[in-house]
Amino acid sequence: MSDLCQIVLGEKEAPQAWYNIQPDLPAPLSPPLNPATGKPIQPQELAPIFPKGLIEQEMCVERWIDIPDPVLEVYRLWRPSPLRRARQLEKALGTPARIYYKDESVSPPGSHKPNTAVAQAYYNRKEGIRRLTTETGAGQWGCALSFACKHFGLECMVYMVKVSFEQKPFRKSLIRIWGGDILPSPSDRTQAGRKMRETYPDTRGSLGMAISEAVEDAATHDDTNYSLGSVLNHVMLHQTVIGLEAQKQLELAGETPDVLIGCVGGGSNFAGLSFPFIPLKLSGKLDCDIIAVEPTSCPSLTKGLYRYDYGDTVGLTPLLLMHTLGHGFEPPGIHAGGLRYHGGSPLVSLLVDHGVIKPRAYPQNPCFEAAVLFANTEGTVPAPETSHAIRAVVDEALKCKETGEEKCIVFGFSGHGHFDLNAYDAYLEGKLEDYELPDEKIRCALDDLPDYPREGAC
Amino acid sequence: MSDLCQIVLGEKEAPQAWYNIQPDLPAPLSPPLNPATGKPIQPQELAPIFPKGLIEQEMCVERWIDIPDPVLEVYRLWRPSPLRRARQLEKALGTPARIYYKDESVSPPGSHKPNTAVAQAYYNRKEGIRRLTTETGAGQWGCALSFACKHFGLECMVYMVKVSFEQKPFRKSLIRIWGGDILPSPSDRTQAGRKMRETYPDTRGSLGMAISEAVEDAATHDDTNYSLGSVLNHVMLHQTVIGLEAQKQLELAGETPDVLIGCVGGGSNFAGLSFPFIPLKLSGKLDCDIIAVEPTSCPSLTKGLYRYDYGDTVGLTPLLLMHTLGHGFEPPGIHAGGLRYHGGSPLVSLLVDHGVIKPRAYPQNPCFEAAVLFANTEGTVPAPETSHAIRAVVDEALKCKETGEEKCIVFGFSGHGHFDLNAYDAYLEGKLEDYELPDEKIRCALDDLPDYPREGAC
Repeated sequence: MSDLCQIVLGEKEAPQAWYNIQPDLPAPLSPPLNPATGKPIQPQELAPIFPKGLIEQEMCVERWIDIPDPVLEVYRLWRPSPLRRARQLEKALGTPARIYYKDESVSPPGSHKPNTAVAQAYYNRKEGIRRLTTETGAGQWGCALSFACKHFGLECMVYMVKVSFEQKPFRKSLIRIWGGDILPSPSDRTQAGRKMRETYPDTRGSLGMAISEAVEDAATHDDTNYSLGSVLNHVMLHQTVIGLEAQKQLELAGETPDVLIGCVGGGSNFAGLSFPFIPLKLSGKLDCDIIAVEPTSCPSLTKGLYRYDYGDTVGLTPLLLMHTLGHGFEPPGIHAGGLRYHGGSPLVSLLVDHGVIKPRAYPQNPCFEAAVLFANTEGTVPAPETSHAIRAVVDEALKCKETGEEKCIVFGFSGHGHFDLNAYDAYLEGKLEDYELPDEKIRCALDDLPDYPREGAC
Repeated sequence: MSDLCQIVLGEKEAPQAWYNIQPDLPAPLSPPLNPATGKPIQPQELAPIFPKGLIEQEMCVERWIDIPDPVLEVYRLWRPSPLRRARQLEKALGTPARIYYKDESVSPPGSHKPNTAVAQAYYNRKEGIRRLTTETGAGQWGCALSFACKHFGLECMVYMVKVSFEQKPFRKSLIRIWGGDILPSPSDRTQAGRKMRETYPDTRGSLGMAISEAVEDAATHDDTNYSLGSVLNHVMLHQTVIGLEAQKQLELAGETPDVLIGCVGGGSNFAGLSFPFIPLKLSGKLDCDIIAVEPTSCPSLTKGLYRYDYGDTVGLTPLLLMHTLGHGFEPPGIHAGGLRYHGGSPLVSLLVDHGVIKPRAYPQNPCFEAAVLFANTEGTVPAPETSHAIRAVVDEALKCKETGEEKCIVFGFSGHGHFDLNAYDAYLEGKLEDYELPDEKIRCALDDLPDYPREGAC
């Protein structure tokens, strides 16, 4: 075993292809459905808002997809990202476990999000698109997309969930430095937004609402496409650089993971780390727990249903088979804005449904407690989203302390919390609420689900 | 020449000793003087506020000083820091120059400051001190010291310049996450602070004032020492890990620097990068311009006098022979708070006086312009302090474009600007003022200098 703290991968060993999990799934993925007809979506139906290159990747069953050179060129600004051994955290916990984290906070926008943002900007630019729209929760995605658009000469329009727009003023600044435009959602720029504001004048917004706005903006402008930062298959695909690098780095360190942990909103950071390990687990070559961590205030994997649902609030997007709390679900305004989404990636959902991935939920206070411990040992202040993974890591490491097991725990450090420090202020002042949703509220949101069988119409 | 973007140094190749420039200076360093007697300070006179280990380093003439293991153990959390090739910036400028930057923004507090904070916390803890006080300008130093104190179980009390305390709310949060305590300076906690508030009720504070408060707090509490983040010899010493690593990394890249650039407030980031190269320059083995960049609003190296002066506003500290604008000088409230200091490191000042280091000053708007260009090419948003170095880099690179010279330009990326984004908001909105100080104002502040010859009383 290596005694290093930083396991660094040379640029020359960086992955040159993304890993597509679709051919390795334990069951075929059900197709997205057209919300009007209920029939499987045809590629050309997605063309008004997505470029062909990404639509192909969305439906692709090839195992490896080459990363284009211009994308690699931008990745080089921060990739390969370091795999770090959390020795100071281990010491503080007194655990025999070895804890590693794949540090995606080193990217210029501070999270894993640019892994897909750069790829998406590239494919859109290649097909002559001039402008991208998107939504953002906590702002990590909006920052990443404006950063990526700047590199490919695209305009970027970000609809930011209103509660986060107010909580995270500096993510706005960052988006503007990279040349992006930004509005709090619901806005008055779109029909969907205006309707929301009329119906719910006090709304704090949600990712689902902001998606409705961004999709409408893209669908109604010829030179404009829409870009999604999570959930979809091509997003999971691009993020696999995380896990592919981590595999090489763990090998360098002489390690095999016993536990893999990531936080889950739409699922892309989690998928990015874990997917390259899943064929090994499915074939029995790797004995590893794979844990997806979400907030108890938005428990789509642990309490939602595995059903067809819309990706947005209004019902503009295709129906996806996924774990969902219902597209009308408006989660409480917790600080981990990136985890406030009613659904989950269809790929992650399928793997949860098959028991390959184990979901787990935590309230936000214990997560911040773990995050402060991390900051006081390893140094870097984690994003509130990331703190969910750290809570699970700490619990797993403490279990090892009880049992004496010397497990290798690897987790995804999805981003830093430099723009979420008012959340820490609130935590340190004891002002954070722990939302445990009453089953009734969840049942009520689920009543509204569109009526399609799991198999869809295919 | 290497074609890499990141030149990474393995942990095993990290420097194990700091480089002390004192034996290699072109002239002996004049000693600090006791402000009461005007006689050279004796080591025991510094003992009420500094530990023996640091006092020895302050006066040491050994060339190499071993880095203690517990310090190396904390350095490993982020060191060796990467040396990066700024290829995207080169491309945007169309310059034949090759631009490298030593990226100190990867430390948990986001700057070079923990290089000395960790060492200082260690030596104080070793000698039984329980609590450290300090001042901070923009907050980089306060963050670094609270981070370091956490690792050695020390309490940390930070006096933060009032204008920065208000401009940078999130540096306060960071200090608190790492367990530090913080007050806006001038505060009512100290006699010096209370006197300032009485005399100048509208003051926005200054580093000099905050130093007076922190020194008084340390001098009046037995278990408490004072810690300074720049200016002093031992601080420059600790920072040399930057330049020592950079030398090895440049060698790996097959490069020899033609130009070395850093921003200067007290001088520690600049010294850290440049000092290890200076003996080579002095001995004629390296033909290299070494440029120190400061703001025109606080031009101590370019317009100050090389004279004995106090380090603080009130006159509590020893007299140091340095470039100074006068200890009573209160610089305008620019956003590069770390550069708002009336004096400069005696070591850097001596080398400027001997023509080894060339100082240069810029107003803040052209610096932010360069910083935004950097963010739009290399990604990371620079601290306002760092933007001064980048302005000079851009100008040097553009000169190369004119002359066709393929120079190797290396600069210190002292920190990121994640907690300075309101400065960028102000810049993008055209609200930043460029202060060019009238000579009269400088002359007036200099009138107040204590009357000692350059040679002091030694």
